[in-house]
Amino acid sequence: MALIVQKYGGSSVGNLDRIHHVAEKVIHAKREGHSIVVVVSAMYGETDRLIQLANALTQQHDPREYDVLISSGEQISMALLSMALNAKDCPARSFTGPQVGICTDNIHTKARILEVKTDVIQRELQQGYIVVVAGFQGVNQYGDITTLGRGGSDTTAVAIAAALKADECQIYTDVDGVYTTDPHLIPEARLIPQISFEEMLEMASLGAKVLQMRSVELASKHNMPIRVLSTFSDGMGTLVTFEEKVMQKRLVSGIAFSREEAIISLSSIPRQIGVEGLILGKVSQANIEIDMIAQNASIDNKSDFTFTVPRREHSKAMKIIEELAAELGAVTIKTNPKVAKLSLVGIGMRSHTGVASTMFKALGNEGINIQMITTSEIKISVVVDESHLERGVRAVHQAFELDKLQQPAESTFIE
Amino acid sequence: MALIVQKYGGSSVGNLDRIHHVAEKVIHAKREGHSIVVVVSAMYGETDRLIQLANALTQQHDPREYDVLISSGEQISMALLSMALNAKDCPARSFTGPQVGICTDNIHTKARILEVKTDVIQRELQQGYIVVVAGFQGVNQYGDITTLGRGGSDTTAVAIAAALKADECQIYTDVDGVYTTDPHLIPEARLIPQISFEEMLEMASLGAKVLQMRSVELASKHNMPIRVLSTFSDGMGTLVTFEEKVMQKRLVSGIAFSREEAIISLSSIPRQIGVEGLILGKVSQANIEIDMIAQNASIDNKSDFTFTVPRREHSKAMKIIEELAAELGAVTIKTNPKVAKLSLVGIGMRSHTGVASTMFKALGNEGINIQMITTSEIKISVVVDESHLERGVRAVHQAFELDKLQQPAESTFIE
Repeated sequence: MALIVQKYGGSSVGNLDRIHHVAEKVIHAKREGHSIVVVVSAMYGETDRLIQLANALTQQHDPREYDVLISSGEQISMALLSMALNAKDCPARSFTGPQVGICTDNIHTKARILEVKTDVIQRELQQGYIVVVAGFQGVNQYGDITTLGRGGSDTTAVAIAAALKADECQIYTDVDGVYTTDPHLIPEARLIPQISFEEMLEMASLGAKVLQMRSVELASKHNMPIRVLSTFSDGMGTLVTFEEKVMQKRLVSGIAFSREEAIISLSSIPRQIGVEGLILGKVSQANIEIDMIAQNASIDNKSDFTFTVPRREHSKAMKIIEELAAELGAVTIKTNPKVAKLSLVGIGMRSHTGVASTMFKALGNEGINIQMITTSEIKISVVVDESHLERGVRAVHQAFELDKLQQPAESTFIE
Repeated sequence: MALIVQKYGGSSVGNLDRIHHVAEKVIHAKREGHSIVVVVSAMYGETDRLIQLANALTQQHDPREYDVLISSGEQISMALLSMALNAKDCPARSFTGPQVGICTDNIHTKARILEVKTDVIQRELQQGYIVVVAGFQGVNQYGDITTLGRGGSDTTAVAIAAALKADECQIYTDVDGVYTTDPHLIPEARLIPQISFEEMLEMASLGAKVLQMRSVELASKHNMPIRVLSTFSDGMGTLVTFEEKVMQKRLVSGIAFSREEAIISLSSIPRQIGVEGLILGKVSQANIEIDMIAQNASIDNKSDFTFTVPRREHSKAMKIIEELAAELGAVTIKTNPKVAKLSLVGIGMRSHTGVASTMFKALGNEGINIQMITTSEIKISVVVDESHLERGVRAVHQAFELDKLQQPAESTFIE
């Protein structure tokens, strides 16, 4: 008998049939003897409907009132799920974020959870109820409704699980779990049965959209295991947990990638103090987000400086850089507006050398030119021409035998 | 500078244009120097949408969860109105029933207000905000959301006005105010500028659907003047207030009527104790609502007994009465399933004789047969054949010169 927090996203409760289906899943877990807290998002489309109402009303959205409006979406889905459970003779009671005491800061529309009170949930669980809680919302010190921003329901679930010291936080989505890479691109991609928080954070930040980053950070901070599973099939999903608990140690876990990148490279920059800050400062001032940065000090007291920006900002960034190059003098600019980033993630590479060379060799064998490299402790990212991305991912995937990853017997796959 | 509570119903906030229009009305009152609390219903159609969702999900509605669901409707409209106000540079903040402390009993879906806390509203008013409050909802002693049932937003407005000791509670609707009779039937009907609580209660209970009865009772109990006005025109509406404050004393205020009635008359009932209770008991046991009751004791120790029931219950009631007549022996039954009730209401008739005779004479001159009469202190009700209703209402309306009622200059009329 365990205490389990389950979270169902907007597509999982997207219509009444699906709400009945979720109710059956909840009842199944309850019948196994567990205590269950369910966190729900708004029904798919409902939040967008409310945002459209607000936009059609006015372009000036008072943030406090915006939160009052948007938070009604979860109130509808939590009530419907609870009604479905009760109708199936499974006593359940639903609560808004403020009602259960999801206490946040005062930053409307993107509040952060400060504390989760547990007295209401504990009382209801002790009386045998399924406790259904609205995700994505809380209450600030003034008693005002706040929302956590998009994807905040994952954070609500992890925060509640951590506060209750639950045994597991299950995030139900429309995918089976976390894959070695995007199975839409590479059909040989395999489900990862277990992954560490750190690896998951790298995967999430690199564009694997299964889990919201903040919820992984929170889970990591509180050592709360998260299981990512599908609402629509019966697999075991992916368990995201702390490193020591990951049973199958592997060199690398997966390959994340992102398209829509552009690379800009300045070479022969006169070596003077603060020139990098000057370049980045000008670009940031224009509200352009810089992703990767690499620099080489070259021998003749001049250096090369390379960075990536979102592709849609490329021409804006180039204009700034060209002006700056003229000021700095004698600078060569190279750029490619159509590149992609490919990142290999794995805690195993901390202690094993040779991961990078295997990766680069795999890309080289395919004749793929690496335009930029950055590394962190558990990640190697490279920039390649976008036209080479798919071949590159497949080559690296094969080189690390990710397509041969052993699957848990119970699991089912998307495709 | 007054403290005014304004209530806008579902059709008043039925779309975004109307919400802007309501915001302008609120701002107008605020600019006149008043402190304003606004109570809103859900946007027209929203509550029905939620009910349809619930019905499509399951036929077993857990009442607690039903209230959680339905109460989201007002949360949307209050947020949108508050956003519209803020966008027009009029600082406003919206609150749910639980947030401002509308404390109710535990009867979900038809809760009654026990207490209205004023600290939150007072605090916000003192800071210069327009306070927008969700109508129709509250919180019980356990912290659960409750709803007051249909029409409950009027009650919320009056209860808040009473708790705040407001100067006036303004109920904005889609009609101009209370009319001497239904202007759809009698175009000569005139707006009543002032009416007493007692008269309004009689009018409301007799089918004039402008105000919800419970809200009038509550206003009367707390001596809280209510003004009924139109959201869509600029008239002064009807002020419902305590008798001493009604300026223009009139014999009668208006004529209410209801169709869909049926009359059943028993004559020559053997005079025995409790026979009336026996008759009414049998009918009530069948869940048939009895409206009017009249009895004449006749000279030969036998009596006549007449009552009305809703027309749809007529055949069910007749079956019971025929069985009972057989038991009682020697009883004659007369019935008419197509009658209407016409009621003349006015506090003036308390002290003036001759009101009844003027009314009966007016009906007699039209050749209308009166099938039953009941009276209360400020009301005379008669039952007539439904085909005579319109002529009867017009005749009585003219006899008391209600078509010559002086109108306030600012008023506009529906038609």
